[in-house]
Amino acid sequence: MNQQDTICAIATAQGGAIGIVRVSGPDAVTLTGRIFTPIGSTIPLTERKPYTLAFGHIKNSKGEIIDEVLVSVFRAPHSYTGEDATEISCHGSAYILQQVMHLLIGQGCRTAMPGEYTQRAFLNGKMDLSQAEAVADLIASTSEATHRLAMNQMRGGFSRELAKLRNQLLHLTSLMELELDFSDHEELEFADRTELQALAAQIEQLISHLANSFHAGNAIKNGIPVAIIGETNAGKSTLLNALVKEERAIVSDIHGTTRDIIEDTISLNGITFRFIDTAGIRQTQDTIEALGIERSFQAIDRAQIVILVCDKSQGESAFQAFYRQVAGRLEGKQVIVALNKCDLADTPTFLSPQGTVIEISAKKGQNIIALQEKLVELAALPDIQTGDVIVTNARHYEALIHALAAIRRVQEGLSTNLSGDFISQDLRECIFHLSDIVGDVTTDEVLGSIFEHFCIGK
Amino acid sequence: MNQQDTICAIATAQGGAIGIVRVSGPDAVTLTGRIFTPIGSTIPLTERKPYTLAFGHIKNSKGEIIDEVLVSVFRAPHSYTGEDATEISCHGSAYILQQVMHLLIGQGCRTAMPGEYTQRAFLNGKMDLSQAEAVADLIASTSEATHRLAMNQMRGGFSRELAKLRNQLLHLTSLMELELDFSDHEELEFADRTELQALAAQIEQLISHLANSFHAGNAIKNGIPVAIIGETNAGKSTLLNALVKEERAIVSDIHGTTRDIIEDTISLNGITFRFIDTAGIRQTQDTIEALGIERSFQAIDRAQIVILVCDKSQGESAFQAFYRQVAGRLEGKQVIVALNKCDLADTPTFLSPQGTVIEISAKKGQNIIALQEKLVELAALPDIQTGDVIVTNARHYEALIHALAAIRRVQEGLSTNLSGDFISQDLRECIFHLSDIVGDVTTDEVLGSIFEHFCIGK
Repeated sequence: MNQQDTICAIATAQGGAIGIVRVSGPDAVTLTGRIFTPIGSTIPLTERKPYTLAFGHIKNSKGEIIDEVLVSVFRAPHSYTGEDATEISCHGSAYILQQVMHLLIGQGCRTAMPGEYTQRAFLNGKMDLSQAEAVADLIASTSEATHRLAMNQMRGGFSRELAKLRNQLLHLTSLMELELDFSDHEELEFADRTELQALAAQIEQLISHLANSFHAGNAIKNGIPVAIIGETNAGKSTLLNALVKEERAIVSDIHGTTRDIIEDTISLNGITFRFIDTAGIRQTQDTIEALGIERSFQAIDRAQIVILVCDKSQGESAFQAFYRQVAGRLEGKQVIVALNKCDLADTPTFLSPQGTVIEISAKKGQNIIALQEKLVELAALPDIQTGDVIVTNARHYEALIHALAAIRRVQEGLSTNLSGDFISQDLRECIFHLSDIVGDVTTDEVLGSIFEHFCIGK
Repeated sequence: MNQQDTICAIATAQGGAIGIVRVSGPDAVTLTGRIFTPIGSTIPLTERKPYTLAFGHIKNSKGEIIDEVLVSVFRAPHSYTGEDATEISCHGSAYILQQVMHLLIGQGCRTAMPGEYTQRAFLNGKMDLSQAEAVADLIASTSEATHRLAMNQMRGGFSRELAKLRNQLLHLTSLMELELDFSDHEELEFADRTELQALAAQIEQLISHLANSFHAGNAIKNGIPVAIIGETNAGKSTLLNALVKEERAIVSDIHGTTRDIIEDTISLNGITFRFIDTAGIRQTQDTIEALGIERSFQAIDRAQIVILVCDKSQGESAFQAFYRQVAGRLEGKQVIVALNKCDLADTPTFLSPQGTVIEISAKKGQNIIALQEKLVELAALPDIQTGDVIVTNARHYEALIHALAAIRRVQEGLSTNLSGDFISQDLRECIFHLSDIVGDVTTDEVLGSIFEHFCIGK
């Protein structure tokens, strides 16, 4: 991708009242100016001040009016990409937007690749790589929690944390080098190593803390997987409907733009819960169908929280028989036992060997709120305040794990009195992996694979 | 709808890189300013110059950053609505856009009704009603022809034509009044009436011309209905696929935002052809199934152009037998006979009692272009040049028909020496109907029904 090209793309989804065509690159204003005729002003676009809007017509080569538009003018470096740029605000007609693109390409623009605007912003030093990646997360954010994490990352919260870490690592490196310079003074070396160990331990703790946050970050970003397990007559789908009911409209309204399969999800207290599609366990002639059990097992394996639904009116022994079928797979899972149809059964509640028991009526909506509160409680996600750094990106997590291994080798080297040369090498590797997160050492190939998942126009 | 309210709406479709929230009304800049914190400038939004962009943060009441945005500032009357207005350009996240709306509503904005921005533009005299209606057509335009018609109408082409007509009608009215003033001079009256008749005839011709253009306008706007009729083994769906093939990607890309059902359409020479879903005529034991025939009849009735597909390799008598089944319903239709599978039949071509015969191979794509050219020819649409006024709106057509009836009553009155008082009344009615098109006399109820079909944010 040549950065000298002037690129253009439709930056809005199809079907709205307004459609935006975005142009960026050295000739952005000149090329836009060639298809734009101002109204009520004689000042050509190229002489407009940055951060102003020009009203006028987009015309084709025959002089026919394609649309009445507003053009925003930006000048390098004060734009999203850091380059000269324009944004053409058109009527939201697919035909008009295509024509405007066609005219721009005719003038010498090139269609932008996915994420190319953000990639240019990164390459021009407007943001580091982790901030650039947060832009895609921000656009895909569908809940308060995902939004807050992405916004914090985009605003450089994570980058600042990494910069702090790298400074400490550079400090440690310089101390190591100091040690190497004085390596003939044995008593000096020993004193330094204690200090170095303390510093390395502090760095290890910070990296470890960041890496560990990925579990929560991933749960926030992708939702907490919940399996609803029960026999087919227990009211599993009625419960799912009751849980999703109020939320369905919102959920369908804000589905992610990059996901293909939409599972049933609900957002509770800003946390997304994702219900894994589970086949019911079908009970035929008192034997539980093997296939149903197997599918339920798979769902349990993928879940963090398991809701066991049983028909309370069938009595406690039926529940215990059902529980025994699945008990072996519940280890390490958070369990809620939903005693359904509680309105039909005038009997005392059961106990369960594992998990919290809640009596509900999925059909009548009884105690569904209590069940939802329990879900939030079991999710046990940290209350994300603006400023908390939580890792949500698998690439970052991987780099942190590598950095963690490197700093641990440093610690080991320090405690086993390994030569400073070897330790320095591990320190450099640790710095390298942290630098990879913000894009200081990232290869074109990695960059390509990051930005190809962006949408066009971003 | 209170025009004193400040309204807000999301003006872009969901899923793009950029999302726009539009605010309009007396407090638009003040209310936007309350949730906006500029970056790199101390000038508050309320003191910004119109037609400038402000970069900054949208923050919630807790001071948390919802997004980094660009805000465009407009001042009455120099905005789309003619009111003070802002446009907030956000990252295209559904969550962010909803939060921005939420914050604006918290500050006292009201969610805009569908089309309320354009309705305000009309009420504030920025455009007349026919121009406002063209905005919706422009957004829905999917072809060069629909775009050109909507653009011409939005730019006032139709309005100017109507203004010309109304001037002539007012001239005629004043002559009528002059005649009334001199009504005791009999010889004078006679001379005037000839002149009046000529003028009325001229007006009748203009209105009639406009009303007649609706046939073409409607065909351009909604596409020309084409039925492909044939026995199930004739290759009907292969032909449809061959016709739609190259166009499919574009068609699915630019489907209208206001239509629920997408039929197979192709755009040829800027003209849209709409293929009516037709059930094949199933031939069982040499009798043509009644249901299939009935469905085909319905398709023919709705079509302007009928393509009769037959399997050439079955021979001429098979075609003639098929033709006899449908011949009765083809009156007034434009017919193309497609002799399919011409590559399999090494026999001379057939004649058809009606329509042009084209030998094709749908499977091999032979002569499909010739068939498409024939479709364009039969569509017989006027070549719409910028400036041609063609009526595309059913409401306008209805008003023109009423105006036409009125002017014809005027003509009749003039030729039968009806009293000038009665003729004046018909003249007023004619002017009334033409005024209705541009919205000079339109009731709130009619306005409501026009704008409720607009999208939100326009």
